This record gives sequence, C-alpha cells and structure tokens, in this order.
Amino acid sequence: MSPTQAGVRQERRKAKARGPKLVLFPQPAKARSNAQADVQLSSPCRIALVGFGTVGSAVARLLQTRGDGSLRLTYVCNRNISRKRVSWTSPDVVWTDSMKRVLTSDADVVVELMGSLDPAHELVRQALSSGKSVVTANKQLIAHSGHELLQLARSKGQYLGFGACVAGGVPVLSGLQDGLAGDRLVQIRGILNGTCNFILSRIEHANSSFADALREAQHAGFAEADPSFDVDGQDAGAKLAILARFGLKVSVASDQVICRSIRDVSAVDFEYARELNCTIRQISLAYLRDGNLYLAVGPSLVSKDSPLAKVSGSQNLVVSTGEFGGETTFGGHGAGGDPTAVAVVSDLVQAANHRRKRLAASDHPLVADCMPMRDFESPQYIRFVVRDRPGIIAALAAVFAKHRLNIDAIVQKPGYDKSALPFVITLESCEGPGLDATLREISKFDFLLEPPLAMPVVQ
Amino acid sequence: MSPTQAGVRQERRKAKARGPKLVLFPQPAKARSNAQADVQLSSPCRIALVGFGTVGSAVARLLQTRGDGSLRLTYVCNRNISRKRVSWTSPDVVWTDSMKRVLTSDADVVVELMGSLDPAHELVRQALSSGKSVVTANKQLIAHSGHELLQLARSKGQYLGFGACVAGGVPVLSGLQDGLAGDRLVQIRGILNGTCNFILSRIEHANSSFADALREAQHAGFAEADPSFDVDGQDAGAKLAILARFGLKVSVASDQVICRSIRDVSAVDFEYARELNCTIRQISLAYLRDGNLYLAVGPSLVSKDSPLAKVSGSQNLVVSTGEFGGETTFGGHGAGGDPTAVAVVSDLVQAANHRRKRLAASDHPLVADCMPMRDFESPQYIRFVVRDRPGIIAALAAVFAKHRLNIDAIVQKPGYDKSALPFVITLESCEGPGLDATLREISKFDFLLEPPLAMPVVQ
Repeated sequence: MSPTQAGVRQERRKAKARGPKLVLFPQPAKARSNAQADVQLSSPCRIALVGFGTVGSAVARLLQTRGDGSLRLTYVCNRNISRKRVSWTSPDVVWTDSMKRVLTSDADVVVELMGSLDPAHELVRQALSSGKSVVTANKQLIAHSGHELLQLARSKGQYLGFGACVAGGVPVLSGLQDGLAGDRLVQIRGILNGTCNFILSRIEHANSSFADALREAQHAGFAEADPSFDVDGQDAGAKLAILARFGLKVSVASDQVICRSIRDVSAVDFEYARELNCTIRQISLAYLRDGNLYLAVGPSLVSKDSPLAKVSGSQNLVVSTGEFGGETTFGGHGAGGDPTAVAVVSDLVQAANHRRKRLAASDHPLVADCMPMRDFESPQYIRFVVRDRPGIIAALAAVFAKHRLNIDAIVQKPGYDKSALPFVITLESCEGPGLDATLREISKFDFLLEPPLAMPVVQ
Repeated sequence: MSPTQAGVRQERRKAKARGPKLVLFPQPAKARSNAQADVQLSSPCRIALVGFGTVGSAVARLLQTRGDGSLRLTYVCNRNISRKRVSWTSPDVVWTDSMKRVLTSDADVVVELMGSLDPAHELVRQALSSGKSVVTANKQLIAHSGHELLQLARSKGQYLGFGACVAGGVPVLSGLQDGLAGDRLVQIRGILNGTCNFILSRIEHANSSFADALREAQHAGFAEADPSFDVDGQDAGAKLAILARFGLKVSVASDQVICRSIRDVSAVDFEYARELNCTIRQISLAYLRDGNLYLAVGPSLVSKDSPLAKVSGSQNLVVSTGEFGGETTFGGHGAGGDPTAVAVVSDLVQAANHRRKRLAASDHPLVADCMPMRDFESPQYIRFVVRDRPGIIAALAAVFAKHRLNIDAIVQKPGYDKSALPFVITLESCEGPGLDATLREISKFDFLLEPPLAMPVVQ
C-alpha cells in the first residue's frame, strides 16, 4: 500500500472516529439570536409583491420555504387578483388588486414584478417616496430610470435592489459591486439573452433557418410572439447598460447601446465559423479604452476556446476584465421563475439587513471622464452570397483596399451551388464606422444576392 | 439592404448624432460628495498593512492607484522593514517592524498578510480586541479560528473580511453570501488549488511523471519547496471548509476535510480518463444530502463537458448548486499578487462602508441540523497495474461482487507491456468506506505491481 493509500484510509478512519465530534459553531439557536440581535431588527421585514406571475409566485414559494422569520410576505397585488389567489401562502397574506392599498400599507419593501415601464415606474417612485424600499426585476425600468430612482431612494434613505434585472439567478451585480469593488473594471462581455442563445444553438445543431429556429423557440416557450425585443438586441442592451453602470461605473441609457439583430444569421455562417474554429453567439460587449466607452450587442464570432462559446440553453455568462484582477466569470441560469426568485429574495435579504442603516445600491461614484460612444474595434467576419463569376474577389478586394481595411483571409468551402455561393472574408481589426461605409459601397455590386452579413470576432 | 442592415446603420448614425449627449449621471463631483455624505464617514479609512510580500505590495499599489481618498494606507509592518521599504508610497506612511506599534496606532483596519497561524492569530485577535476591523487573506487562520474571530469581531462591533482566503480574486464568498443569499445551497464543488492544476495539466499534456511535473511547477514558481500542503489537499481543504461555512452554512474545521493526494496520478490515468471522455483534476467537493455533510478534496475524474474540465493554469472555478437557482459558476484568477490584492481591497471597501455600522461577515445563522461527515458516494475509477496472467479479472470481479460493488466497465487500452499492464475498472456509484474495505482486500493479490489507485468520477 502506498503512503497515500494508507493516508486515505487513516483519514477515513479518523473521520469516522470523529464523526460525532463534528462541531457546528456557533450553536444554531444561539447563533440565530445573536445574529438577530446584532444585524437584524427584531420585527420581520414585511414584503408586498406586486405582480404574481411566474417570478412572483416563485418568490412567494421561496419566502415560504425559507421560513426563517425575517422576511414575511404580507401583500400580493395583481390585476384580477381572484384568478391569482393560491392557498399555500400564509392566511395572513392580503390579496388585492389595488396598488394604492399596497402603497398605503405597512409593508417595508415593495417587490415590483410587473415588467415594462407603465405603471411600474410610477409604483416604484411612489413606494420609495412613501418610505418603502423596493426590489425589482424590471431591467427596462432600471436601464431607463435607474438614475432617477437611485437618487430618490437615496434621498429617502431607502434600499433599491435590482440584482434580478441582469442574468436572473447569476449574482453578477453583487459580484461587480462588492466582490470586485477593489478593482478597476475595463471590460464586460456576456451572453445575456436566453432566447438568442436557444435560437442560435438550434441553427447551429439542427441546421435550421432563423425562421424555423424562432418557431421552435416560440413553441418551447423560449420566445415571445413578438420576439423583436430579444432577437434584435434591446433586451440584452438594457442589461448591458445596467452592467456598465455598476461594473464600469459609467451610465448610458439603454437605447444608446448599438444593437444588431441575429435575424440574418444562417446555418452557413455556422459552417464558416467552424472553419475559423469559432461559433456564433449574441454577445453583449462594453469596454473603456483611452477615455472612450464602447457598447454593443449583436451576433458575433467567438473562439471555441472561449468560455462564451460553451454557454448553452438559458444559461447566461458574464466575463469581467479588471485592470488588476484580470478576467472573472459569473455563470448560471439567466431566466426562469426560480433562479430569478433567488435574485429577488437575495435582494430582500439585503433590504432587510440594511433597513434604516445604509443604502447599498447607490454608493458607487461614477468615473469622472466623459466618453463619447462608438462602435467597437475588432476583427470582422463578412459573409457574402453571390452569383459566381470571375472577378468578384478582385472587385471586393479593391473596395476594402480603398477603405484601408486589411483582408485577413478568404474562406470558401466547397460543395455550394455556384448560382448562390456563400463565402467569407475576414478582416483584420477595424472600426465599425469605417466598415459601415465600406459595406455600403459593396452592397451596390450586382453579383450580390443578399446584403453582406458582418459580425465582429470577439475574444 | 436588409431591414437589419439598415437598422444597424441607422443605429450607428443615431449613435454618432447623439454622441455628445452621453449622460454620465449623477455628475461625478456631486455624485462623490453625495455618496460620501450618505454612506461613508467624512474621514478616510486608515489602513495598516502587516506583511509586505507579493500580496502586501500589490495591495499598497492598488490603494495608491485607486486614489479615491476613502482608503488611506498609513502603516506598513514587516520583519526587517528596512529591506522592504519602497519609495512609491505616500511619504506619510509609517514603516515599522513593530506589530505593537500597529496595534496601538489609530489605524481603523489591520490587513493581515503574514500567513500561517503564528503570530497571525494573535495579531488578529488583538487588533479586533482593540476595536480595529481586520481584513485577512489567511485561509489557514480563518479555517482554523474563523468561528472564534467572527465572534470576537461581532462582540466588538468590528468587520472581519476574508474574501481573499478562497480563490484569490474570484468574488465567490460575496457571491455565496450576498448574491445567492436567497437560495438554499446544497453543493459546492471547485478547483481551488493552482499548483495541483498546473501539475495535473503538465502530466496530461506533456506526458510527464508526477515527479517531473512537480519539479517543473517548482521551477516555474507554482509550487513550494515542500509541496505537500498543496498536492496532498490541505490547502484546498482549508478553502473548502470556508466555502462550506459561508455557502452551505455549516462549519467544520479544515482538518476534518478528507484529503487525498494527487501524487499517485500518472500519465496512464489521463490516457484512461480520455477513453472515458474525462480528464483528471483536483476537485474539492462539499454537499448536503439527507442531513449528512460530505466534504472531500482529491484527484477526480471529471467529464470533458464539465466546466471544471476546462480550468487551466492558476484559474480557479467554483460551482455552487442551489435548491432553487440551480448551478452558478464563479471563475477567475485564484492566486497571484494583483488578483489577491483586488479581493483584499474589495474587503477594505466593505470595511470602510461598514465602519461603525454593521457587521457583514458574521450575520448568517448556521443551519440547525447536526450532520455526521462521511466520504461521498460516486462512481469510481480504479486503475490497476498488474503482471498479466489469466484469471485476474475473475479474481477482482469476485471481490467486487462479494462487497456488492457493481462493475460498470473494464477498460484496457492496447499497446502496454504485459509485464506491467495498466487497466481500469469503473464501478457504479458506491460509498467511500465500502470501497475502502474492498481495496484493502484486493491489495493482497500478488499480481498487483502497485496498489490500485481509486478516484471518484464527479459531475
């Protein structure tokens, strides 16, 4: 027997021998009373849920399951509340369809889970104004009015929690705000939209068209009837604006994020991406360089070796880059009732801990420099579909040369029909605006059967 | 031009047009004074660094670079301080080799970066007793005396931060404590030791022996002259005990973690692991099931599809599993001066924010149930090296059958010398103790050239 084997056994014997000596310190009962005395107010934190859909009922269930006494559900508010009422909550819960009743109640925290701006904005404003803390999962609201609401919360000494707005159950906002508070972050990139991830994965693995993959996503409940908010990038854009605010300490309204749609990505792009050892994902990217801020969302080529290439289904992944700490990744379920409920309840724990004490969500000064916003610089993938004839490459190369864009490679896979031939040109790193003018010029060529599709190649 | 392309261009034009309108809100100067008024005391937080090695000097540099005025380095303490003194810190910094001077100074926070238990334990105890907060990167200290020190900090109303103890710059502790506070975590698994990761990667990719890979690691500065704390698992075990405390809300002393060494892993194991679509990593695993707590560190087979299989170099990865939120991953640089300094300074930001306000690190009650500790149940990989002769499989299979262990597969790659033939038997899920007895019996067979090497196969 090797010393190690002997060691293992000895360890196991020791472990068995000392099994009963396992010390759980501090003694649980005492620990809880200590903790309560030190860090919690003696009364439980009273919670009003507004919006009782998938996430709302998951929050109610999670609060019930925790049963630690410090967070108590007291109100549930929804339109047509009689349709929503369930029997498994505490009988003390008041069910109402009146937001006014919630606002004038003794609830300490209002949880806003209605989504969209109206009437969520007014509810949150009034709740904060009347001295209640607010927890919300409404990314549009925070991306649109986060500044105003944080200022209001601060002026009223209340907590405003919105960890559930970005990447559902993945604790990326607390990670960026607290865990990496000591670093200076310079870049955030991520996969923030599960619908796009589902659709792109289907195109990749089932060789589907975008339209078919979208229908599948809708059928499977991964996409809305009107999918534009997801597939055209605005959903991820709102999340990226929030990440930029709390990670990079800058803030832009979400409609200032450059968004490109995934609608034009086709199976042939995955074939060419594979040739380049890449796959295609909807990537959200924000970075600071030389006093400039770059923010964009859109389909992008990512190396198969990148952690971003391995994200599947409704998984989200955020990679932050710090000047000192380098790359840090946060991954997990970006959507769904239970993961989102975890983020909401985690914020409620914060709200309860911070009641009358301090404001957690608004204490990060922004960086001082004002930065214009432009599309970002990166190598580019450009896919053409042409009616083949001699001279096409020469014609394209001449336009690229004129615009001082360097061709990196020309990739043409065999086996395609010459009458609708797809091929790819990759360009060395270049800026979006320069490329844009070039593609405008190229689009005039009559050998093109459809407009060229350009995607950045990101790390 | 497709609608999308048109959209992109329109977006870009809009972006350009509104470039100068980029709003950085609130106005930085005002934001800072607001923030300070609301959440910080007006005086800067005075910081004493004890231990000025790689991490200590990185912390000093990071504090200097931040230059936000809220964190001020005032003391640096080290043995033979004259050797350590640098010219790039503020001239106001007091350089001393007297810990007593630090303890009697007006420093608000003592940063303990000496490592090991003595005299770090006494320094931290005295600093907390004298009403100073403490930030430490000392995993041994926290794994060994965390309970006592947290109680002391709580009784003195001070902050004890130790985010740098686990996974260096990866904000996993804040993620588990705050970001996932709403969930009930049931499992934590991770790659927590860069030395083991380096050595196992070398064995895998360069076909090295353990001894050669260790020498390489030592040469490259990835392993100590005495590597046992790393390769035999105690380093990761201390980190796992801390993760269990703050993630699973249970606590065991670090010497109660079952540790198995990576010393017996050889290149042939990677060959067989590949046959099973796996690789081999030092995995730290803690989980709660049916009221039992399982805690172990050791070489394990992980599926190539697992995020754990893709961790390279000094990268660390922690995967937590919550009852509600499912799997969440935290990855990044687990060691090195700058990443560890980020964790220390992030704790200092917390300490400054929480000065005289609340205690962040000790407000999580532990779960109530007492749990015996056992090795965990999992499928097993067992590698034999035998002098080949007929009847070996029959002999082994008889022993496994007698102990009611189910063989899953027998894997034998061609091309090995029959006089020292390695082959592998995989077993269906079984418990450590049962396997242990079986291996003891098997070890008596005279056809074995070395003791069998057993490794769990983890998800």
